[in-house]
Amino acid sequence: MTSAKYDVLGIGNAIFDVLVQTDDGFLTGHGMTKGGMALIDEARAASIYRDMGPATEMSGGSAANTIVGIANLGARAAYVGKIKDDQIGRLYAHDIRAAGVAFETAPAPGGPATGCSYILVTPDGERTMNTYLGAAQDLTPADIDEAQVAASAILYLEGYLWDPASAKEAFVKASTIAHGAGRQVALTMSDSFCVDRYRDEFLGLMRNGTADLIFANEAELRSLYQTPDFDSALTQLRNDVKLGIVTRSEKGCVVASSEGVISVPAFPIQKLVDTTGAGDLFAAGFLFGLVRGAGYEKAGMLGGLAAAEVIQHIGARPQTSLKELAQKHGLPV
Amino acid sequence: MTSAKYDVLGIGNAIFDVLVQTDDGFLTGHGMTKGGMALIDEARAASIYRDMGPATEMSGGSAANTIVGIANLGARAAYVGKIKDDQIGRLYAHDIRAAGVAFETAPAPGGPATGCSYILVTPDGERTMNTYLGAAQDLTPADIDEAQVAASAILYLEGYLWDPASAKEAFVKASTIAHGAGRQVALTMSDSFCVDRYRDEFLGLMRNGTADLIFANEAELRSLYQTPDFDSALTQLRNDVKLGIVTRSEKGCVVASSEGVISVPAFPIQKLVDTTGAGDLFAAGFLFGLVRGAGYEKAGMLGGLAAAEVIQHIGARPQTSLKELAQKHGLPV
Repeated sequence: MTSAKYDVLGIGNAIFDVLVQTDDGFLTGHGMTKGGMALIDEARAASIYRDMGPATEMSGGSAANTIVGIANLGARAAYVGKIKDDQIGRLYAHDIRAAGVAFETAPAPGGPATGCSYILVTPDGERTMNTYLGAAQDLTPADIDEAQVAASAILYLEGYLWDPASAKEAFVKASTIAHGAGRQVALTMSDSFCVDRYRDEFLGLMRNGTADLIFANEAELRSLYQTPDFDSALTQLRNDVKLGIVTRSEKGCVVASSEGVISVPAFPIQKLVDTTGAGDLFAAGFLFGLVRGAGYEKAGMLGGLAAAEVIQHIGARPQTSLKELAQKHGLPV
Repeated sequence: MTSAKYDVLGIGNAIFDVLVQTDDGFLTGHGMTKGGMALIDEARAASIYRDMGPATEMSGGSAANTIVGIANLGARAAYVGKIKDDQIGRLYAHDIRAAGVAFETAPAPGGPATGCSYILVTPDGERTMNTYLGAAQDLTPADIDEAQVAASAILYLEGYLWDPASAKEAFVKASTIAHGAGRQVALTMSDSFCVDRYRDEFLGLMRNGTADLIFANEAELRSLYQTPDFDSALTQLRNDVKLGIVTRSEKGCVVASSEGVISVPAFPIQKLVDTTGAGDLFAAGFLFGLVRGAGYEKAGMLGGLAAAEVIQHIGARPQTSLKELAQKHGLPV
């Protein structure tokens, strides 16, 4: 195994976020399940958007948010995701490159527009996402650069990739290359409804060793093992994967490995504004900690720190230097 | 004079904001004048954007921000501004309509893209704007609907309209219609460099009665009368216009009229984040107060309240209900 050019390479659905603060009545009035990510078609997107209040836009996408966080912390990061060569796609490409991320995926010259997620943020800070995949569904195995994957210490994949058929093939191709090069593969469960859709396949990826690391929140973990009992689910997780990291919102996280199970408290916040990106940024901090060899506890603290920053403002990308924030709190960078 | 269908009709350059937090070195390194609005061409826009960090986007434009603030407070508001029928233009149209504003200006089917301002926000909260006018420069007198202008109690115009030649003609057409219908015309000076460019014309608009109300900040007032002395400038302003409102940042505002000069303190804030839109939202609150017949002092307080909301977050559009905020503080709505 040669030394890595990138610390982490992320692959995901490239999605532009359209965020609006609203009330719970909007969700119920539009038949939305609070806290989830629903896939929507163009007509539904148009209908939801027409009813939404004035919005704020910024680049998003789960794995992309994670990769931006990793770069922001100071590691070498790359991203693969499909945008269209349209105005929003150009904003998207700018933002991820401006964050210091290598991003070379060829934009689609035609076809559906760059994907958008219409994100409703309720007064409790919870976000409910409605995602039109658009160009993201056209990510194919041809977009996976074998040399780049082989040159990345950790391959980070989002469960959402299982939604578009060809993206799933890209996922499998990338993980095969990564393991062939002796690299590690991390997978995030993405969303409990996503786990519902692909439970058996996700469990298969864990049990056949495709995924070395798993990120899940409590709802995703419970959905994965179809049990309301956290401890029982955690025990099963330990049997199924080498390293499992479970986030528990204000209760912090649990890291389960062959070394045992450790709990790391959440990072304190002043005010919860918008949970969009909380899990993504937690994964950023944790993976960054792994890359720096900081140990699971410090990695969990870095995850908590990055998540705390992102939930105190609107949007899923950091608005301050996470590196400086980590330094200020005595965490390794 | 028939009763008004709209309380305020605003006309301005329709501009989409691309905001980024940066340091002072970025401004000096790119030859920018801090706190100002510079007009840039497409090549310069591309060059600045390439060097900018990850951004947040939202709809902007000075008069549009004001009109959105007025609608947010609960008055009937309309806007005229030119976008292109492109992705960003569609975001723009959505946001202003979603704010409750009547917006019927036909988007340009071709030509330059919807205008964008690249806004650098420094750690002191100051914003420095670089504006590519794009489609906004194609606003023409044909975009002015005579019936709509005549049916609006106050016509609100931004000084920035003096930059694109045909927009200036639209400005003149609209103000002529408004006065013909017995309506009032308000003008904001927009920017001290804008005043530098059009000093004599702006003074002419005041002295020949085209503008009944003038909004200016201290720098704009000093530029208008080319004097460093505030009191001397204010005396001249009183001679030149029926009602002059001068904003003074944390010192509040001064309202100069035939009734005398009154000072209104600023609304207290917790933390200055981004001054983008401060003057625009002050004008929103003040005009709303006039519309409601609240008197100059209460109008100044409403202006201060709206400005205080917008400078405590990124971006120039309100992120909360100004109406509820005003009610909470005992101000008339």
